[in-house]
Amino acid sequence: MAKRPYPLSKVYGLLEPGPVVLVTTASKGRANIMTMSWHTMMEFEPPLVGCVISGRNASFDTLKATRECAINIPTLELAKQVVGIGNCSGIKVDKFAKFGLTPAAASEVQAPLIAECYASLECRLADTRLVNSYNFFILEVVHAWVDSAVKKPQTLHHRGNGLFAVAGETVKLRSAMK
Amino acid sequence: MAKRPYPLSKVYGLLEPGPVVLVTTASKGRANIMTMSWHTMMEFEPPLVGCVISGRNASFDTLKATRECAINIPTLELAKQVVGIGNCSGIKVDKFAKFGLTPAAASEVQAPLIAECYASLECRLADTRLVNSYNFFILEVVHAWVDSAVKKPQTLHHRGNGLFAVAGETVKLRSAMK
Repeated sequence: MAKRPYPLSKVYGLLEPGPVVLVTTASKGRANIMTMSWHTMMEFEPPLVGCVISGRNASFDTLKATRECAINIPTLELAKQVVGIGNCSGIKVDKFAKFGLTPAAASEVQAPLIAECYASLECRLADTRLVNSYNFFILEVVHAWVDSAVKKPQTLHHRGNGLFAVAGETVKLRSAMK
Repeated sequence: MAKRPYPLSKVYGLLEPGPVVLVTTASKGRANIMTMSWHTMMEFEPPLVGCVISGRNASFDTLKATRECAINIPTLELAKQVVGIGNCSGIKVDKFAKFGLTPAAASEVQAPLIAECYASLECRLADTRLVNSYNFFILEVVHAWVDSAVKKPQTLHHRGNGLFAVAGETVKLRSAMK
């Protein structure tokens, strides 16, 4: 995929629909990936994203220590990898190798981007006030990449227990909403 | 629609996919509705939901004052109402009347449920620590209702500017993820 820089002002439209995402982190040259569905936009620009990353995930410690990550948005073609990544721990496994994914260098963070995902958001940790209470991290998106050839991404939306709704038809309504 | 009580342990599967929702509030016998897309699950049970409700919305003040609301999940049939509700203010308009929606009594909160929505979650305000910084409210779902006849809800997922992806086909993968 050929991803190009994407305006930060439009990032909300990538995450607001609620897709499952793959969060990448890196520490001491070792990259990891986790599957995440508990996230929300919190501000348009600069884009802020709130997300829950359980302390049971290796990514929790790496994000706390490095204060950087990337949010990568997969589509239907990656459904098996999405679930597989969610079912194993990066402490034991090199998930890029195990799941045949390609790390790509980010521009502003050490965490790698996932080349096979149609969009990637480079993030820095912006607020940790609710980490102790809820494992809730607030991230600022500092750089965004999107494959502009993907017009209607078939994103995955997790209904629990490995059941996903795939983004299907689109409807456009006249709206004053952003 | 005939909604029945729904286990709190399964509520996450309703919101985790990221649907647009309609938030109802009530104060002094006057009900209001707002459209919301910026929400995330924060805990399985009791279910906690984090959400951004802008101070520009009338619902912001009502939620702060009453500490109660309901989250109602609409499907494709209600797309026009979803956008219309997002485009006007409850200060001037009775949105139930204007959009032909039916208020139904909740069991534990004063806010009415929207009968036409396939699921409704009665919520109490649980944490306001991030309201001043981000308009971010943390709600506890205290009672849930779902129309069990709706097996594959065509929920709406907002991509910005009135463009919605509709939940389409489903895929089921073997998963240890909850």
